[in-house]
Amino acid sequence: METVKTLLLGGTVVTMNEQFDVFEDGAVAINGHQIVAVGTRQDIVARYEADEVIECDGKFILPGLINAHTHVPMTLLRGLADDLRLDVWLMGYVMPTEREFVSEEFCRLGTKIGCAEMIRSGITAFADMYYHEAIIAETTAQIGMRGVLGQTILRFPSPDSESYEHALAYTRKYIEEWRNHPLITPAVAPHAPYSSTKDMLKQCAQLAMQYDVPVLIHISEMKQEEDDSFDQYGMRVVPWVKSSGLLNAKVLAAHCVHINKGDMQTLYESDTTVSHNPTSNLKLASGIAPVNEMLENKLTVGIGTDGPASNNDLDMFEEMRLAAILAKTAANDPTALPARQALLMATRMGAQALFLGDVTGSLEVGKYADLIVVDADTLHNSPKFKRNTDAVYSQIIYSTKSTDVAHVMCHGEWLMKNRDLLTIDVPHLLEEARLYAEKVDALVDAFLIAHEGDVLKKLIAVGGVERTESFEVQVKVRITDPEIVQKLLKTYEVEILRETHYHQYDTFFLFDAPEMGRVRYREDDKMDEKGNVAEVRARLTYTSPNKERSFNSAILLSRSRFIAPADRPLRFYREYFQAATVVNLSKDRRRWRILYQDVVYFINLDRMLDTDSNEMFLEIKSRTWSLSDAEHKADGIQRMLSVLGIAPEDFVYKDYLEIYQEGVVG
Amino acid sequence: METVKTLLLGGTVVTMNEQFDVFEDGAVAINGHQIVAVGTRQDIVARYEADEVIECDGKFILPGLINAHTHVPMTLLRGLADDLRLDVWLMGYVMPTEREFVSEEFCRLGTKIGCAEMIRSGITAFADMYYHEAIIAETTAQIGMRGVLGQTILRFPSPDSESYEHALAYTRKYIEEWRNHPLITPAVAPHAPYSSTKDMLKQCAQLAMQYDVPVLIHISEMKQEEDDSFDQYGMRVVPWVKSSGLLNAKVLAAHCVHINKGDMQTLYESDTTVSHNPTSNLKLASGIAPVNEMLENKLTVGIGTDGPASNNDLDMFEEMRLAAILAKTAANDPTALPARQALLMATRMGAQALFLGDVTGSLEVGKYADLIVVDADTLHNSPKFKRNTDAVYSQIIYSTKSTDVAHVMCHGEWLMKNRDLLTIDVPHLLEEARLYAEKVDALVDAFLIAHEGDVLKKLIAVGGVERTESFEVQVKVRITDPEIVQKLLKTYEVEILRETHYHQYDTFFLFDAPEMGRVRYREDDKMDEKGNVAEVRARLTYTSPNKERSFNSAILLSRSRFIAPADRPLRFYREYFQAATVVNLSKDRRRWRILYQDVVYFINLDRMLDTDSNEMFLEIKSRTWSLSDAEHKADGIQRMLSVLGIAPEDFVYKDYLEIYQEGVVG
Repeated sequence: METVKTLLLGGTVVTMNEQFDVFEDGAVAINGHQIVAVGTRQDIVARYEADEVIECDGKFILPGLINAHTHVPMTLLRGLADDLRLDVWLMGYVMPTEREFVSEEFCRLGTKIGCAEMIRSGITAFADMYYHEAIIAETTAQIGMRGVLGQTILRFPSPDSESYEHALAYTRKYIEEWRNHPLITPAVAPHAPYSSTKDMLKQCAQLAMQYDVPVLIHISEMKQEEDDSFDQYGMRVVPWVKSSGLLNAKVLAAHCVHINKGDMQTLYESDTTVSHNPTSNLKLASGIAPVNEMLENKLTVGIGTDGPASNNDLDMFEEMRLAAILAKTAANDPTALPARQALLMATRMGAQALFLGDVTGSLEVGKYADLIVVDADTLHNSPKFKRNTDAVYSQIIYSTKSTDVAHVMCHGEWLMKNRDLLTIDVPHLLEEARLYAEKVDALVDAFLIAHEGDVLKKLIAVGGVERTESFEVQVKVRITDPEIVQKLLKTYEVEILRETHYHQYDTFFLFDAPEMGRVRYREDDKMDEKGNVAEVRARLTYTSPNKERSFNSAILLSRSRFIAPADRPLRFYREYFQAATVVNLSKDRRRWRILYQDVVYFINLDRMLDTDSNEMFLEIKSRTWSLSDAEHKADGIQRMLSVLGIAPEDFVYKDYLEIYQEGVVG
Repeated sequence: METVKTLLLGGTVVTMNEQFDVFEDGAVAINGHQIVAVGTRQDIVARYEADEVIECDGKFILPGLINAHTHVPMTLLRGLADDLRLDVWLMGYVMPTEREFVSEEFCRLGTKIGCAEMIRSGITAFADMYYHEAIIAETTAQIGMRGVLGQTILRFPSPDSESYEHALAYTRKYIEEWRNHPLITPAVAPHAPYSSTKDMLKQCAQLAMQYDVPVLIHISEMKQEEDDSFDQYGMRVVPWVKSSGLLNAKVLAAHCVHINKGDMQTLYESDTTVSHNPTSNLKLASGIAPVNEMLENKLTVGIGTDGPASNNDLDMFEEMRLAAILAKTAANDPTALPARQALLMATRMGAQALFLGDVTGSLEVGKYADLIVVDADTLHNSPKFKRNTDAVYSQIIYSTKSTDVAHVMCHGEWLMKNRDLLTIDVPHLLEEARLYAEKVDALVDAFLIAHEGDVLKKLIAVGGVERTESFEVQVKVRITDPEIVQKLLKTYEVEILRETHYHQYDTFFLFDAPEMGRVRYREDDKMDEKGNVAEVRARLTYTSPNKERSFNSAILLSRSRFIAPADRPLRFYREYFQAATVVNLSKDRRRWRILYQDVVYFINLDRMLDTDSNEMFLEIKSRTWSLSDAEHKADGIQRMLSVLGIAPEDFVYKDYLEIYQEGVVG
């Protein structure tokens, strides 16, 4: 007779092992962090005794559930804004609020609430993508859950990083700190292909492979992503991601709503796994993921709740059930994704999706004791028929509620007993959450209106908004002789890629509070060789206030800038934005797109129209998502200025609006 | 200061009245069965005092939820068979099990379990369609819930009625008994257009209009129904139903998944209301109902769980949430069906869908006190922002769980307090359910295999099965002179509609237990005038054992008979059905479809082939869904026999198989 730490006796043990063994009146023996025996009660009590014996009669004993995709601190944004268009929701609410509020403290509190809710719904392991991920790791480890926790990397500034280079550096440090932890697997989380550059993805892959940690990324969540990818790169999202080298790392791809059979093949061949997130996909109107086809194509597919801001909870029972029933309608086949398969995706296959298949996901000897005990003797699960061997799966998936979870153990430690959380102080947490909500309620309205939110939201509401590169490097010089530009263009190191000539008519909408940013309506009249208008295009640009600094005397601007086509008359926008001040400016612009020492720049030769002076300016500019690239380009501009013989004291540090705004109020 | 029965003080009162008033720190005063005041706590405590004061701080006070479509005793079939094709599920499992097990006792127990589960999930009123509905009414009234309870009427025999005439008679009696009850609204429930005859629907409408009670019916749940309706009647389902006159009654139509804009217009003009049942529709792969379009077309749409055999629970919070998120993907618009609209459909609009809009569905003075108090201070609802006035609806729909419902009041009486059911003995009920499941487990396998289930299931599995008319009236006579038939055909009262000539090759698959029924494979060779084969058709017929009785010496057969096209070789079916005995029979058949006294009959003149005798038989037959019609037709056959001068003593009471089976074993 061997003595172990804990014995679970009685109840229906649903192992989810390869043979799908189910033991009626079963038992599980746990010692240290691991499962040491699984079988019938009779068998186990004959071999083991324990200090702690838990009677599980009338209960299901299951592997702990695996939440394959979430953003756990977003519990703190739950219900902040719902039933909105995705772009309005993301750019108008979530991102501005995150920029303002997401801090280490935010992530600590949000993670506590999220972990508490996940444990209550029977989750023992989850994959996360958010900011300040080291804080999330610390909090998760303290609570005692298992996590594959990915630090988010974006090509634009994020709540915790000014640039993607900063985010990569943070991630490297985070991985080094956490990579040997028994509960935490640190991971690299480039947000999505559309918010990455190819070079950024390449660096993410290198980092992940260097430390052998997973990559977490959103792939093909919206149809628009596929369309844009094709427009921009001439290929679908998955092949483009593959071309970056990212799939050489071990990748868990969230959503995959709009992938096709070829994409599935690519993902399968690269051992990429998938998280299916049905509630979020329905709620944001992303579409219905082809889960049946993924499974037919042998992909490893887990189930995720996604973040609580788009769900709005972290309930894996709801998610399993929805995955099972939605797949039937998607396949037009009620036999598709049967209950057992749904449970498999949330347990053993889910663990494989997180690259944790060896340590968790099923009740098997040698795996960590990550398991849950669930009340089966409930009204909503009565009566229970046993004639069908799959009936137990049907009861778990179609009738059981997350609130039926009684006990939760992770890594051999109890996290919940009789619905009491043992590692989290819930009343204290609820109070903290209440105080936080009060603070946000007080601030958020003021913030969203007074800050860029309101103007940007208005812009987003008229549609088609895109975010542009975060970094702009530029110099501007007042000149008298336009021929000076030829001096540069004729250098052997310059190759002219394109030359264009515009008349540009700008209308600036300005607001009382400078932090509200500004909107520019620009009509670009493209001129032909004879000086006639060949083509007209109008677009809107929203710019938040600049954060400037100079590099080698060039100006580096870091700012949020959004552009959108202006397909309505100027009069409409004039009324729509209700600006405090409207300023008109027009100029003649000759523009060259050049390669200088193999790097792309723009040269603008501008002559102001409708001003007394008819002043002329020369601009050298470049934009990029990368901070190091910006610094590199600032050096290039410096070298071009030497060629032109222009000294820093000649630079003009104001933009055109600042130079001409006075007295030109419309 | 007025004294009332009950005061609910504090919490967020979500009235769902026309103005969508919400009172933070609100209150509700209840006296007798009714709501006498709704407002702020300050306002109400200044005007009322009460013996019973319930503190509701940190809670939502909402109207009781309305479940617009269910089959409540089907709790007893929950999880019996899942993840199956609809025809396999319905014809192979549910219907045979219902025929065997559904009794008054079944309905009483199933209703208790269902009501207990519904009260726990915050439902105070529901629309039901099942058998023995008077028992369901009695049980529901005892428990204290509000119900619109429809007695099911089918054109074929059902668990409580041998024919639709019996069901109509039962329904009339049931309505008379219950029509003045304060909680129960009896209703007429023709199951669906495809399981009705037009005449049956007409009679349902007359009955409903006579007593001014609602009609409940399933409409356009599966795409197949629309296709079949068009094939059979040359029109879509809704116009066909309209042509029967049914829509002149007040009709609540469940599902409406495949209706189009014209159908919506028809339903709107006839004041027909709709129940949307998203879980059931997904789980059975029926499709996604066009709810947004229905609402745009001003239809009154409630939300229903459907029966627990296809859901598998009775959780309106799940259902509201799914309705809200599914509509967004269906519309490809995340702003579609916002949270407030989902709650409206489950409260005030749901009550209107049940034709109870005047008495329940919102917290308004003068309406019955049907209300629920729901815990809002939960982890999964933290934090709660108030900046957005719609945030409360978002919290209720997207984050709240049915298990958060604390108290439930219906008709001014408490049904649940602190999750304790006050009118139902739950432990006793769970024990009853357990005993029932044990009984079914023991019986159902034996029953489903030994009884018709197994053979019928096999037939269903090969596809295309249809149920035929339940009643067959027939006489058969052995004759020597084939010319005798002319005597009848030449009568002035006979009009020949069609004359055909076949060689019929029948193969019967017989099983050891006669109660397993039999399968017939028939090859029909249609002969042309020259006696050559012009056309060949093969089909399968499954027949359960006959229940015979005679009317005026004709034989009336009442039996379950299913036909299917036989599109595979006979050899396949021979192996597939694994019959104990195979019998071959072939005959030459001349067949006339005639009108006799304006009623359709078939006359068969059969000469047996491949038997020693070459015996000849004359048959007069007719089939119908209606028992009274069968009796009427038996009279007609009797009159035709008089014309022929055939006396009852000449009748052959065996069918061909019985006559020739001996010694012809294949």
